[in-house]
Amino acid sequence: MARELASASSNSTSGTRVRRAEPPRLGRQHAIVHAFHQALRGKTEGAAPPRILIESPKLLGEALRSRLRIEAVLFTPVGWKQHGVRLGTQLSKHTSTGLVEEAVLRSAVDVETPAGLAALAQPPQVRLEDFWSDPEPTPSLVVVAAGIQDPGNLGTLLRVAEAFGAQGLVSLKGGVSLWRPKTIRASAGALFRLPALDGVEAERWLEFCRSRGARLIAATPRSGKPPEELDWRGRVSLLIGGEGAGLPRAFQRAAEAVSLPMHAQTESLNASVAGAILLYLAWRHRM
Amino acid sequence: MARELASASSNSTSGTRVRRAEPPRLGRQHAIVHAFHQALRGKTEGAAPPRILIESPKLLGEALRSRLRIEAVLFTPVGWKQHGVRLGTQLSKHTSTGLVEEAVLRSAVDVETPAGLAALAQPPQVRLEDFWSDPEPTPSLVVVAAGIQDPGNLGTLLRVAEAFGAQGLVSLKGGVSLWRPKTIRASAGALFRLPALDGVEAERWLEFCRSRGARLIAATPRSGKPPEELDWRGRVSLLIGGEGAGLPRAFQRAAEAVSLPMHAQTESLNASVAGAILLYLAWRHRM
Repeated sequence: MARELASASSNSTSGTRVRRAEPPRLGRQHAIVHAFHQALRGKTEGAAPPRILIESPKLLGEALRSRLRIEAVLFTPVGWKQHGVRLGTQLSKHTSTGLVEEAVLRSAVDVETPAGLAALAQPPQVRLEDFWSDPEPTPSLVVVAAGIQDPGNLGTLLRVAEAFGAQGLVSLKGGVSLWRPKTIRASAGALFRLPALDGVEAERWLEFCRSRGARLIAATPRSGKPPEELDWRGRVSLLIGGEGAGLPRAFQRAAEAVSLPMHAQTESLNASVAGAILLYLAWRHRM
Repeated sequence: MARELASASSNSTSGTRVRRAEPPRLGRQHAIVHAFHQALRGKTEGAAPPRILIESPKLLGEALRSRLRIEAVLFTPVGWKQHGVRLGTQLSKHTSTGLVEEAVLRSAVDVETPAGLAALAQPPQVRLEDFWSDPEPTPSLVVVAAGIQDPGNLGTLLRVAEAFGAQGLVSLKGGVSLWRPKTIRASAGALFRLPALDGVEAERWLEFCRSRGARLIAATPRSGKPPEELDWRGRVSLLIGGEGAGLPRAFQRAAEAVSLPMHAQTESLNASVAGAILLYLAWRHRM
């Protein structure tokens, strides 16, 4: 797919001057449009990495500031008039651009009323080994999403993880994908900056934590210690479970349980809200 | 509307034995179905109070446990088979029931796939004077939603307000209504139990706080004190602003500002997440 995208950008290889010219018109069957459809369905071809689907000028601005590699941008004619010139100078010569009809753009995005453009970007390259890679075990926390099914919750968790100084986020196999458009929107750009890994096996994460001397703390609705009684310094992996299934068994044995004290009438809080409170407390405690 | 609903329930005035019998079939034009449509659009007739639209068996169970006055329940034939007998014994003789076709039920609810039933309930009666009505100024906090536009955020705020021991929630004029179906769903039943007032004038709330000796604390994205440095005891009104507009001016002068310390890259947190963290800290501080 990368080669297809590259070849479609041939009209723009000579730099920003050409970039300011109106991009070529593309039909619904064009390879670039196809790449958007694939990204929308969360599909990847061969060994290609997942793509980030960006659906608003604001989010595209965030992606550019975060130096993501933008592979393609589709504009409607109106979107091009509004945003094309300003964005054109910021896009590199490796970015394919195209003009499409409103209906084609709508078919390529997850939102009902697209804002005149959509873009595809490569996610930042992150490896498991990037976490806790400093030789000294400095205080740092990695959030682990364990079976979160709601993309809005996962996106919010990314946003609070960044806000409260987490080193990154790991999403375990079995939860919703990090690269779902709604996750990306809900993260408000945090996914472009915070090191994040998708689809990691629970056992692999457990082993990795052992090898790096990281302690596991798992949020549970009841029966854990209050967060104020735990030690959040050193290397900590904070597990936030999904709405229903709870934590993988391997973690239940290995992790210390933490529970937010709450009113008896409340059954539970949603994952992103509980995560936000714990991440805030952990951050303040590490300071 | 109340009289119409009462007259339609004539087949069930003799108690739970009759309640177990299949309810009458109602057409799309029936007064009860009309009452659901009004509630769905957030409309009230004359001096009638707003209605709570309940869209799932689980939420109806919560409403019954919370002793809400259930005015009407519509079932599809399948919904009646699944839930009718069990619920029938819990419904009072003042509750009208009816059987409607799937399409009619769908027209009466906010969700795409209704779960076989929908109910209308009267919200609990709450007056401004119910807040801080104890003669001694015991530690207690009332959350004020100031211009929150997203019903999901407002519902989550209700849920965390209950979880962390707030005395109630007041929604100021200009924000989304407490009685929107999505607010009700997101509150997960908290709206049935927590004293909550909708559409209160900012000036009126300010005066009321003064008359009861309650301090105002307002959440702001930056420039306020960290929450750990504030005194959360006594009577406190915690203002959570909307996503965009910020706080009404009258409050800016009268309130102490609180801000969650966060990473420089994060612009802001959404209202319900910031509210959750502040409410948790305030609750722990009051203990």
